[in-house]
Amino acid sequence: MEFNSASTIWVLLGAALVFFMQPGFAMVETGFTRAKNAGNIIMKNLIDFSFGSIMYWLVGFGIMFGTSVGGFIGIPDIALFGQTIYTAAPDGVSPWSFVIFQTVFCATAATIVSGAMAERTKFSAYCIYTLVISALIYPIEAHWAWGGGWLNNVGAGFHDFAGSTIVHMTGGVAALVGAKILGARIGKYSKSGKSRAILGHSIPLGALGVFILWFGWFGFNGASTVAAGDDASLDAMGHIFMTTNLSAAAATATVLLVTWALYKSPDVSLTLNGALAGLVGITAGCDAVSPLGAVIIGIVSGFAVIGAITFIDKKLKIDDPVGAIAVHGAAGAAGTILVGFLSTDTGLFYGGGGSQLLAQVVGVAAIGVFVGVTMFVTFTIIKKTMGLRVSAEAEIEGLDVSEHGLPSAYADFALSVQSVGAIGRDSIPDIPGTGEGAGTPPARPAVTVTDTREPRARDADVPKFTKVSIITRPSGFEALDAAMHEVGITGMTVTNIMGYGMQKGHDTEYYRGVEIEPHLLPKIRAEIVVSKIPVDTIVEAAKKALFTGNFGDGKIFIYDVENVIKIRTGEEGFGALQDE
Amino acid sequence: MEFNSASTIWVLLGAALVFFMQPGFAMVETGFTRAKNAGNIIMKNLIDFSFGSIMYWLVGFGIMFGTSVGGFIGIPDIALFGQTIYTAAPDGVSPWSFVIFQTVFCATAATIVSGAMAERTKFSAYCIYTLVISALIYPIEAHWAWGGGWLNNVGAGFHDFAGSTIVHMTGGVAALVGAKILGARIGKYSKSGKSRAILGHSIPLGALGVFILWFGWFGFNGASTVAAGDDASLDAMGHIFMTTNLSAAAATATVLLVTWALYKSPDVSLTLNGALAGLVGITAGCDAVSPLGAVIIGIVSGFAVIGAITFIDKKLKIDDPVGAIAVHGAAGAAGTILVGFLSTDTGLFYGGGGSQLLAQVVGVAAIGVFVGVTMFVTFTIIKKTMGLRVSAEAEIEGLDVSEHGLPSAYADFALSVQSVGAIGRDSIPDIPGTGEGAGTPPARPAVTVTDTREPRARDADVPKFTKVSIITRPSGFEALDAAMHEVGITGMTVTNIMGYGMQKGHDTEYYRGVEIEPHLLPKIRAEIVVSKIPVDTIVEAAKKALFTGNFGDGKIFIYDVENVIKIRTGEEGFGALQDE
Amino acid sequence: MEFNSASTIWVLLGAALVFFMQPGFAMVETGFTRAKNAGNIIMKNLIDFSFGSIMYWLVGFGIMFGTSVGGFIGIPDIALFGQTIYTAAPDGVSPWSFVIFQTVFCATAATIVSGAMAERTKFSAYCIYTLVISALIYPIEAHWAWGGGWLNNVGAGFHDFAGSTIVHMTGGVAALVGAKILGARIGKYSKSGKSRAILGHSIPLGALGVFILWFGWFGFNGASTVAAGDDASLDAMGHIFMTTNLSAAAATATVLLVTWALYKSPDVSLTLNGALAGLVGITAGCDAVSPLGAVIIGIVSGFAVIGAITFIDKKLKIDDPVGAIAVHGAAGAAGTILVGFLSTDTGLFYGGGGSQLLAQVVGVAAIGVFVGVTMFVTFTIIKKTMGLRVSAEAEIEGLDVSEHGLPSAYADFALSVQSVGAIGRDSIPDIPGTGEGAGTPPARPAVTVTDTREPRARDADVPKFTKVSIITRPSGFEALDAAMHEVGITGMTVTNIMGYGMQKGHDTEYYRGVEIEPHLLPKIRAEIVVSKIPVDTIVEAAKKALFTGNFGDGKIFIYDVENVIKIRTGEEGFGALQDE
Repeated sequence: MEFNSASTIWVLLGAALVFFMQPGFAMVETGFTRAKNAGNIIMKNLIDFSFGSIMYWLVGFGIMFGTSVGGFIGIPDIALFGQTIYTAAPDGVSPWSFVIFQTVFCATAATIVSGAMAERTKFSAYCIYTLVISALIYPIEAHWAWGGGWLNNVGAGFHDFAGSTIVHMTGGVAALVGAKILGARIGKYSKSGKSRAILGHSIPLGALGVFILWFGWFGFNGASTVAAGDDASLDAMGHIFMTTNLSAAAATATVLLVTWALYKSPDVSLTLNGALAGLVGITAGCDAVSPLGAVIIGIVSGFAVIGAITFIDKKLKIDDPVGAIAVHGAAGAAGTILVGFLSTDTGLFYGGGGSQLLAQVVGVAAIGVFVGVTMFVTFTIIKKTMGLRVSAEAEIEGLDVSEHGLPSAYADFALSVQSVGAIGRDSIPDIPGTGEGAGTPPARPAVTVTDTREPRARDADVPKFTKVSIITRPSGFEALDAAMHEVGITGMTVTNIMGYGMQKGHDTEYYRGVEIEPHLLPKIRAEIVVSKIPVDTIVEAAKKALFTGNFGDGKIFIYDVENVIKIRTGEEGFGALQDE
Repeated sequence: MEFNSASTIWVLLGAALVFFMQPGFAMVETGFTRAKNAGNIIMKNLIDFSFGSIMYWLVGFGIMFGTSVGGFIGIPDIALFGQTIYTAAPDGVSPWSFVIFQTVFCATAATIVSGAMAERTKFSAYCIYTLVISALIYPIEAHWAWGGGWLNNVGAGFHDFAGSTIVHMTGGVAALVGAKILGARIGKYSKSGKSRAILGHSIPLGALGVFILWFGWFGFNGASTVAAGDDASLDAMGHIFMTTNLSAAAATATVLLVTWALYKSPDVSLTLNGALAGLVGITAGCDAVSPLGAVIIGIVSGFAVIGAITFIDKKLKIDDPVGAIAVHGAAGAAGTILVGFLSTDTGLFYGGGGSQLLAQVVGVAAIGVFVGVTMFVTFTIIKKTMGLRVSAEAEIEGLDVSEHGLPSAYADFALSVQSVGAIGRDSIPDIPGTGEGAGTPPARPAVTVTDTREPRARDADVPKFTKVSIITRPSGFEALDAAMHEVGITGMTVTNIMGYGMQKGHDTEYYRGVEIEPHLLPKIRAEIVVSKIPVDTIVEAAKKALFTGNFGDGKIFIYDVENVIKIRTGEEGFGALQDE
Repeated sequence: MEFNSASTIWVLLGAALVFFMQPGFAMVETGFTRAKNAGNIIMKNLIDFSFGSIMYWLVGFGIMFGTSVGGFIGIPDIALFGQTIYTAAPDGVSPWSFVIFQTVFCATAATIVSGAMAERTKFSAYCIYTLVISALIYPIEAHWAWGGGWLNNVGAGFHDFAGSTIVHMTGGVAALVGAKILGARIGKYSKSGKSRAILGHSIPLGALGVFILWFGWFGFNGASTVAAGDDASLDAMGHIFMTTNLSAAAATATVLLVTWALYKSPDVSLTLNGALAGLVGITAGCDAVSPLGAVIIGIVSGFAVIGAITFIDKKLKIDDPVGAIAVHGAAGAAGTILVGFLSTDTGLFYGGGGSQLLAQVVGVAAIGVFVGVTMFVTFTIIKKTMGLRVSAEAEIEGLDVSEHGLPSAYADFALSVQSVGAIGRDSIPDIPGTGEGAGTPPARPAVTVTDTREPRARDADVPKFTKVSIITRPSGFEALDAAMHEVGITGMTVTNIMGYGMQKGHDTEYYRGVEIEPHLLPKIRAEIVVSKIPVDTIVEAAKKALFTGNFGDGKIFIYDVENVIKIRTGEEGFGALQDE
């Protein structure tokens, strides 16, 4: 037989498992970001895999495994995969099995970026990016190590068994460059530059994604033997499963304990990141380090990911909603370099001297620089031509609506106003109500009502309390909140409601090709009870904040309140409304 | 050795992966429908697999692979699987491995239907259906092609490698017949016949389902070699992984781009359907077409699924909430027929003449007619005897409550009223408040209050504004909304609240065997501020719409409003309440 | 070759599939419990696997497979896995492949407990528990059967092929002991001892978990041949897939039909439990019983799980939110003992006499007693030292906030008050507002307002209606609800809102290392309209129930209501507010 059954099955099983990492990424990225962008993130994950699969088949595989030009780039065969796949596939593995296996690795590198650039990137720009990385950037740098290129000749030969650097750090560096050029999400940093927490919308889905990735990683690392027909491979396969699992376990435990110490309680989403960091970190050396070495790599990866997330978020002030840069970039680089110390054959700690370490450092640096520069060029061109980022209105409204015409990825659920509330008052961008061109709110008619009335005679012993109830579009909350704060209110409640209305400014939206009739639309109702502050002041401030001149600006209702009691102090009436 | 290790492992791996498609279907169908039916859809998916597994073991496998009677039907062995399984299993595959592999294929055909018939089918009726298709309909038609039956002798021999037609189109045709006989969901079509969008409740879960299906499909198609011990199989396995993936990728990209062009933005749920269509389409020819052929099949499948969804929805007016008919029926038929053109051995485009194409057309037609007729008979008998569809009340309330006594599949979440809002005002069926037998709302007592009062003296310069706040059961919203619209209100807000109350009309409900105490129940509060329209008119209309004479009809509260301001125009008082 | 490709691949595939059961457990446990504890459950599942993997590598594997001391315990090799793994691995399986396979089985036993102890266990206590079971308890009892220990010499030799007892019943017994010592969740039982339903928050996620577990079980049972290189193994592998699937299907169908009969409609979450029970039940004898025997085991497991859930919940009054004790304990024991009857080689029903049955009973009893006693000691020590259970405040608030500083695992969703509402009025523990040390609410100032006012003159013909609107922290609802009930109100509505406020009593919380700014916080608004009951009575009762003296106690607003109409009776005014 020309092919080996075990080797081919092993590679195909690996391909299926690595494919399955795609929903892992999709769930992590969706769960760690906000509900209003969930559909958009799904689409990005779906399309980077789809476009990537096609591009890698058309061009990428040939660049990666074609006849090498000086160890720097392969030359694709003109006849699609005429012979290339035959010469590229390892002994015993049927040729297309090898191509599909390589395809899903390429797609993994590509999809990492979507998390770091989530919630603000134009969908069209993302489509272009994904073509470039799948067809060119990944295949070229992967050629250097896996396609027989120059990195094999540095020192003891660059050792990145399953792609800590070639796949993951590549994705991480691309994510870093992309997120930097893109800028932070609105509200992520205060005007004074303080980082703010923007909570993910579904920790369970994010966790499911992490578990799926861990599962898929057994294929990612295990099947990278691309052989299962000899004793050495069979021994290595078990070994790799063991080191992969131990590193992930150690990194998870490390982050758990460190965040417990730092933040008083073990942080859920960082611990989930920790598991991924352990998996990324061990990927380069899973075949070369001992189980103990794997635990060490896991611990280092755990520290690396916490340190990097904090550094990127608070020092570099680069906004990475899911931690992709730290997980894939930092842990990927750390794990790759640690092979130079911990490889039981060639590592410095095992008497192997420094030539492995040298190769590792050179590999990390070379690939880091190459990917950084080429991605910088790519994203800069995209930015200057088609634009990289959606408008502030689109971002605040959410990319599901603005980029896909999907009113909500969770149409049956009442959503909270957390997302906007988390943004805070001092980081409001130029949104409609206050921006140029929005016009001026119409003057109130001469007859003013609420403040000219006298208090009722029989109520003379109590001050008058008035409830101002403002109903408006959810995206208006930000500006309203700021305006109310400025006016000096001491309390406000916000409720999600549905209201009649037409937002005629919008294009018609379609769901599955059917026009969506905007009947009941999500609105918010902000309620403020005032006594000292004149009702007119509130009304004018609200009008100024919310006026755009379009349908959907909303209405304000004024109600009489009989009394107010503050439970904590027992104060009643006027005193109950004052701040402490 | 009698058995081949590689072949048996490959078949069992395939069986596991195809089993895993079950949660894929469950998540797609749940995500694309409404939250109030989520538990019911889960149950349907669970039970069609469970009942199907047992029926296929008892009867189905024997009919499919037993001694053939004229190529039309196999005869099950009396002794359960006495010898049948031994003669049926391919060389080298251990016998039960083959049976479990075939079982999960049968279950796939059965489960497709649940999506198209979602949100309105009686659970008991679905149970009967699933017995029939698993025990009889699928085994018979599958016998024609895979059990050594007559379709192998037509033209070049019907080629449906892994079941584009035998599994998927069978499910799709059954879905078409079922959905047609069942009728559309309440609110899906307006009285004038216009199709309306009813949004799915969790796009992320739906997307997860699609990714799971794509993953499982590598087993569905790849393991259909039912051999992995020879070069030809090993070569084919890699080839099949490649063509399967490329077709799915191409179909995804196609639908993305086409919906972008048609609807101005790439549609999320259609693109997800596109991925599935590409997978269904390539299933027949995944072993026979080239990678380029696979891309072509993917593109055609993408167009087919968009065209079919639109045609079924808008022209045939058959309501298929998840697109199962188009995905499995249309793309399945298209992919099967395309083998006649694109098979590199026997296809018309490759000089193979028309005999393959003939076989494909005959196979698709024969199976389509057979499944269509038998399912029509099956569903018609079910409809005439036990009934196929739940009552309108049960449908509006949701099948989780009405069919399973589950108050909510998402008990901790506040649900929005989207579902009903999406239905629109001109498609309300006979629901309690307005139907016959509901009785007449009691006359108001002689003393009427709100409209006999004079405006307060000191408020004489402003018109009187009144807020009418109506609290009622969520299922009453539909009728209330219509009634308010008729009365001519210009605005309404709706809030989800929880309220005390007892719905004594209900049976006791159990959760995990424990009686559920109805303490706080979900209610809606509709608020309308009026000035010109008399309060009494609103109250009477609301009473008429909501009255059933049962507990839970709700209450109406009347409040005074001091003033109203419309932000867009600056109008205050009376003018602020008028529509534009 | 020293190793067999097929055997090693099969074992590694099994390891990956059994690993994947971890998210299966995580999703089942998350879905079947409340949203406020979702992050905590994820963390428990993540950490029991991580800690368990490390402990089992360090100690557990050696205890299980090291040189046996009298058949009761193995002696770990001092040099980590010096030789042990080589002698332990079956012929043809590469050594680390065997270790990772055993690791994931150990982790399965450990993770079962988290579901039964969900929603009230201290995270730190759970961490300790997980170290003990992974390092000692599981390895010791597993040594008895799988490590060459004494259970192999009882009767015909204890037969637990893949671990119905060794893995699952072990987890189930540990869960029983843990849940018993821990006590029930607040609100699970009324003061009179009546069991109450507390609904899970996401049935779709729970169902996804069940499907994932079913999928993983093909690896759990199928790969327990730990060989795939000979005819006997290959035959067994297919057989095992078949029996595993049939038992699960039969148990699912059984529970569906039984709950349909018992509770009038098929119960969703019990049916999901049924599937798992069928899987647990068949695990001991999946290789030894016929397909028909598997169906019988499935049916018995289905009855066992319903009976056990009811018995544990209503008679033993042990609170197991997800049914882990019944699923893993009861079905595990039943399935193991049934092998004594149904084994086609040695079973009583097949003429094999009673020696197999004896062995099964002894095995179940010995392991049950051993695990029960050791876990009792473990949990008791934990309880006496660090404490096993969180405080009542922490439990009511939810473990995500109190144990992890995570404000919500679903930050973008409006949550309902179901969780508390389900608890009922007569099971309120000592929560802040009423407990000792909380201080006394401040006396109201002398000037009382609402009840000294006279009704407006023009309203003399109608009674005065007043709306009392109470805004407070969600965790206060329980006490408020009870207080209002006591006062005799006849109706109340509750709305989830967001409100300004600071809860200064709280530690600073971090999300991904970034301080969370408490801006808008979730609050509830309870609204009561009264006429006969004096407003002051309501206000005083609310103050008493809600007062803690901390920020966040809330405010009470009083509004005038013009009129009230009850729709069912048409009553207006005073009569509309009276109960029926």
